[in-house]
Amino acid sequence: MRAGIWLIGARGSVATTSVVGALALRAGLAEPVGCVTAHPDLDSAALPDFCDLYFGGHDVATVPLAKKAEQLAAAGVVPARLVQALGAELAEVDADLRPAPEAATQAATAEAIARDLMRFRTRHRLDRVVVVNVASTEAAAPPHPAHAGLDALSAALNGPGTVLPASSLYAYAAFTAGCGYVDFTPSTGARLPALAELAAHRGLPYAGHDGKTGETLLKSVLAPMFAMRNLAVRSWSGVNLLGGGDGATLVDPGANAAKSASKQRVLRETLGYAPAGDTRIDYVADIGDFKTAWDLVTFAGFLGTGMCLQFTWQGCDSALAAPLVLDLARITLAAHEAGHTGPLESLAFFFKDPMGDVDHALPAQWEALRGYLAGLGGGR
Amino acid sequence: MRAGIWLIGARGSVATTSVVGALALRAGLAEPVGCVTAHPDLDSAALPDFCDLYFGGHDVATVPLAKKAEQLAAAGVVPARLVQALGAELAEVDADLRPAPEAATQAATAEAIARDLMRFRTRHRLDRVVVVNVASTEAAAPPHPAHAGLDALSAALNGPGTVLPASSLYAYAAFTAGCGYVDFTPSTGARLPALAELAAHRGLPYAGHDGKTGETLLKSVLAPMFAMRNLAVRSWSGVNLLGGGDGATLVDPGANAAKSASKQRVLRETLGYAPAGDTRIDYVADIGDFKTAWDLVTFAGFLGTGMCLQFTWQGCDSALAAPLVLDLARITLAAHEAGHTGPLESLAFFFKDPMGDVDHALPAQWEALRGYLAGLGGGR
Amino acid sequence: MRAGIWLIGARGSVATTSVVGALALRAGLAEPVGCVTAHPDLDSAALPDFCDLYFGGHDVATVPLAKKAEQLAAAGVVPARLVQALGAELAEVDADLRPAPEAATQAATAEAIARDLMRFRTRHRLDRVVVVNVASTEAAAPPHPAHAGLDALSAALNGPGTVLPASSLYAYAAFTAGCGYVDFTPSTGARLPALAELAAHRGLPYAGHDGKTGETLLKSVLAPMFAMRNLAVRSWSGVNLLGGGDGATLVDPGANAAKSASKQRVLRETLGYAPAGDTRIDYVADIGDFKTAWDLVTFAGFLGTGMCLQFTWQGCDSALAAPLVLDLARITLAAHEAGHTGPLESLAFFFKDPMGDVDHALPAQWEALRGYLAGLGGGR
Amino acid sequence: MRAGIWLIGARGSVATTSVVGALALRAGLAEPVGCVTAHPDLDSAALPDFCDLYFGGHDVATVPLAKKAEQLAAAGVVPARLVQALGAELAEVDADLRPAPEAATQAATAEAIARDLMRFRTRHRLDRVVVVNVASTEAAAPPHPAHAGLDALSAALNGPGTVLPASSLYAYAAFTAGCGYVDFTPSTGARLPALAELAAHRGLPYAGHDGKTGETLLKSVLAPMFAMRNLAVRSWSGVNLLGGGDGATLVDPGANAAKSASKQRVLRETLGYAPAGDTRIDYVADIGDFKTAWDLVTFAGFLGTGMCLQFTWQGCDSALAAPLVLDLARITLAAHEAGHTGPLESLAFFFKDPMGDVDHALPAQWEALRGYLAGLGGGR
Repeated sequence: MRAGIWLIGARGSVATTSVVGALALRAGLAEPVGCVTAHPDLDSAALPDFCDLYFGGHDVATVPLAKKAEQLAAAGVVPARLVQALGAELAEVDADLRPAPEAATQAATAEAIARDLMRFRTRHRLDRVVVVNVASTEAAAPPHPAHAGLDALSAALNGPGTVLPASSLYAYAAFTAGCGYVDFTPSTGARLPALAELAAHRGLPYAGHDGKTGETLLKSVLAPMFAMRNLAVRSWSGVNLLGGGDGATLVDPGANAAKSASKQRVLRETLGYAPAGDTRIDYVADIGDFKTAWDLVTFAGFLGTGMCLQFTWQGCDSALAAPLVLDLARITLAAHEAGHTGPLESLAFFFKDPMGDVDHALPAQWEALRGYLAGLGGGR
Repeated sequence: MRAGIWLIGARGSVATTSVVGALALRAGLAEPVGCVTAHPDLDSAALPDFCDLYFGGHDVATVPLAKKAEQLAAAGVVPARLVQALGAELAEVDADLRPAPEAATQAATAEAIARDLMRFRTRHRLDRVVVVNVASTEAAAPPHPAHAGLDALSAALNGPGTVLPASSLYAYAAFTAGCGYVDFTPSTGARLPALAELAAHRGLPYAGHDGKTGETLLKSVLAPMFAMRNLAVRSWSGVNLLGGGDGATLVDPGANAAKSASKQRVLRETLGYAPAGDTRIDYVADIGDFKTAWDLVTFAGFLGTGMCLQFTWQGCDSALAAPLVLDLARITLAAHEAGHTGPLESLAFFFKDPMGDVDHALPAQWEALRGYLAGLGGGR
Repeated sequence: MRAGIWLIGARGSVATTSVVGALALRAGLAEPVGCVTAHPDLDSAALPDFCDLYFGGHDVATVPLAKKAEQLAAAGVVPARLVQALGAELAEVDADLRPAPEAATQAATAEAIARDLMRFRTRHRLDRVVVVNVASTEAAAPPHPAHAGLDALSAALNGPGTVLPASSLYAYAAFTAGCGYVDFTPSTGARLPALAELAAHRGLPYAGHDGKTGETLLKSVLAPMFAMRNLAVRSWSGVNLLGGGDGATLVDPGANAAKSASKQRVLRETLGYAPAGDTRIDYVADIGDFKTAWDLVTFAGFLGTGMCLQFTWQGCDSALAAPLVLDLARITLAAHEAGHTGPLESLAFFFKDPMGDVDHALPAQWEALRGYLAGLGGGR
Repeated sequence: MRAGIWLIGARGSVATTSVVGALALRAGLAEPVGCVTAHPDLDSAALPDFCDLYFGGHDVATVPLAKKAEQLAAAGVVPARLVQALGAELAEVDADLRPAPEAATQAATAEAIARDLMRFRTRHRLDRVVVVNVASTEAAAPPHPAHAGLDALSAALNGPGTVLPASSLYAYAAFTAGCGYVDFTPSTGARLPALAELAAHRGLPYAGHDGKTGETLLKSVLAPMFAMRNLAVRSWSGVNLLGGGDGATLVDPGANAAKSASKQRVLRETLGYAPAGDTRIDYVADIGDFKTAWDLVTFAGFLGTGMCLQFTWQGCDSALAAPLVLDLARITLAAHEAGHTGPLESLAFFFKDPMGDVDHALPAQWEALRGYLAGLGGGR
């Protein structure tokens, strides 16, 4: 399968790291460390090969991809030697990046997006294209009556004003262009009845929300540990200090609240109760892409004896996210090929805020993912 | 079932906390927090009721149980109000504690031990008795040819000299008295061919080794997390600062080495490779029973980007161990009742160094345990 | 000198711990650990003896002092054996605690407060009395024109409405009753021109603000370390999780902001610049009096190389504050005796937000304190 | 003053970082962050200018300096852009690096070393040269009778066998060549009566031992904090994980013990008692030059209430050491110029194991340093 990945936010850190990584894999300059679909238990011949992936995307930013890659190298996110070695390949991808369209109506904007997608598919003779949203987190979108059904939505988009938040407009355009859609952010994306209707109608799969890269990943194994040991978690408080582009966005209280809520959900779901405490997100420019999260968990053991666990996670967000972006794209492309439509609930392993009524414990999510990939066939 | 629990090291911190807790449960003064067998998914009517447990034991120490309980209350291990409320019950148990026998030959010592066990069973009209070793960790025992078979062993025990380490002599005595045996320590216990032969011959179950209460518990969920995410763990270094009785014992380099090895095994088994780094155990008297463990994990993500996780676990060892002692006793008693014999490999969930070729990831161990308890029947 | 300490918030955790401690010192049941004035380099015969301190106070709460002490013992703040041994002495102090007066005008309330102070002084034939505010933190008080001068203030207090926040009204009453005043909280206290005028007029000393018990204490030695090494601190972010009475108060955003600002001041003052990052305070009931603070400091070394320091402070706030309350009371009483009036700037060692244009580095504050005590004479 | 710095271990990480940094300062490509002598309160015209420093040195390794610098850039120790910009300058320094001499007797070796030093001085027309030992830590040296006096030493060096450890032989050679000497390592260096005699005879200054770059730096401000607050430190345990060249050396138990002892000394000296606990050093190759130290301090407050502080220091050892190497060289050169001879006790600020009976609290050491530099005159 010749497969295309169209990135919303294509000149951002996550997107650029994903592209550098995929090009490095294709050139044999790197190993797929951090790629879940490269795990021996998960690999499947139904997935498009890392070497058959083509990249394009939209962005409002105009920084050349190679320049952005150099900045990431200087910050320690990707190795400088790779960026140097992949100059020509990065320039090729850069030629496939388009400015984010903006037209008089949202309908016209969506058409322009879809046109870009279809040209990309034609130009590279791609069998399938998946759209992956790795743009900055949006503030929570206000509800709109036209979200309830496809006909109302189509009509409303032709009027003036903002009916859909950007992430959802891209999902709409992706579906109209016959592409699957993955939302790696906590934004609204495809989570609207009208868009579900459109995906069903067009027979397309989609996945989300909010890639699970750090603190929530830890919660998804530690909270089940406390539950299995029948220990009573009294409080779970966390602070996330981060300085990259996403950090700056999250200073906006609306976006911050959306993200924090998605981060505490795993506790309630795996413990069966909500312990005291909050998760805070603070923007500290100097920290850059190397997010530092600190969590304090207080819990009671036998006879009420108080104890505590604390952890500090110092992870490079883009380097954690990028291989998952490749994983999600590969799987959604294969799901599309297999004719699966609607929300891909078996991909909860990847998300802080997964779709469907699914288990939030990581091992159970792993089993669901393994089963799904096995079902896609072609065990390698 | 009227069930007896005979504790080796009966006046130690873990044993005393177990007894205080069981008496508090019986009196309705506490909830079974930290008892895995009280988890709604695991509870089984085949298990003896918490209220039907009787306690006895051996110890070389002579401190009265109530006095030891007061010391634990002063140290914050158990609530002072429980110790005050349970004075009469603690005195009753104290009457069933015996000095550790020591005779001219190990055979005679084993006979004296077995005699104590049988008298305990008779005095309380118990259906089953299980022996649980919660004494201090022994230094690794030297090999002896008589360990290879039961006949050789029986003969050798009648001679002078030390054939079996204490933990194994207690297992021998337990089996001859018709009791199951659980080793909560890293000592040799029942792990000798001659003792396996004896247990098989007498139709008795046994379990071990080394209760998984803190740092290794965390490793058993965190290491699989790194594996599932296909991240490359470069180093995993840990230090354990502890000050209780076990800490003092572990200053002995032999005992320390035994414990440290058992602590790194989980990494090799769940990651599939052994990262750099060691686990150290240091005795710091002032820290008392509230062990503090710090671990640093360095790992590489996509394209080799280096990241790290560190955690600090501040747990009360006795309060973490005691409910597991009750769990293990209940399950081994039920296994005995059900006619199961030999090593109980389904109990790996509880141990740092489990018996058999078992999975070291906690969620898999939980499933094995759940399946085993379901098989015992009597779902509550 | 027979000396009296009148506590505002006398039934709170800090006050109760201070009283239990002073009674224990008098009874020879404890050592003055944590009392700075007991340091061999600081002790001075000019200070009233620990054994000559008498306690009284106001509170809106009515819980008996002995009951409050028992609660603190259960929470591990003070040893249960002391509370048991000091029952009679605690009851005696309880007899000197009065409900917080509340009259038709603030002038009348101040009179009632002053009357309580004078009766306390007479009853125990005290040479000097100092009023110490250990009540909960107030929200920042709105400005009022009458704060500017004593005459305007006296007039305004006779009218209806709230002219002074409670902490300042107590300072006003203390001064009118001829007592020194210490504010251990970040509240306004004596920091108003009108009150400075009154203290000067009556020849009385006062001190404040906001006892330096934990995170800020660390900042006051760590920030100078970075400065002395000429390292560039890029960011300093902190989170304080606390659950006692003060924690609940600080959920109020006004009080929280007052406290957070006072916490970052030391960085700006000792580094000479304000690094990025904030200090947050979160209320987590389960954590109780054992506050947990985590700070992350990122800094650049030679050639800009990025590094970091993080620390976790787990301290019992009341146990850290109580000895300082005794220190401050002893010193202010001695200052009063020595005829010193106005703000005691040499006591910056004790405060997050000290009075005057003083050095914020702890060692310099120590030297200032040592010099001041030496000047009081009577080196022991 | 045209000043020379001769580095023992000149191709190691610390030396290379020092050279890269000094060249970058000279070229105006970097700021002297981390250089204590660049602090506005300390700068003095008596110090040789950063731009007037010339470098040479000995090493057993043969890796080109530029290559070593590239390795450090890849590891994030120095910026790659500096290494690229300073290629020519690094090559020039490389021309002044000599293989470590080794002759038939230690006397002949010392002569060869001294000859290299004198040639370096002549070649660059230097006014003064200082020798700085930044080689790997030696195992503790066995005592030898000839250490007691200069005559005996001179005689013994002419015989076969090892009389002096390498660090001391270099000090001997430095003194005979008329150079000051700084030992940045815990090795023996100039700390022998015979060498003190030689330095006095030749009128030369020297300084040491063991640069205070990380964990001990923190101890030197935190331990005084506990002392000033009259809090009782119960235990202070630490672990250092490091992976650079020094780490590998410290796997040798002798070197490790030397370093650990030097690390705990500050506690005994500033607290007045030795708390329980040890400092461990573990080699973990993957950690590289970014040392991670974790310390746990348990302490008792008022009425014995137990509390704790823990910190994690993640610092780049070479980047922390290099500016101090420049500082020490500048000051020792100025001391030489000023005619000061013998151990420079005012430089305790820089060392874990300083010379003389000096204060171990950092602020007092800072004052001593400031006074010394002011005495050198020429306040800038």
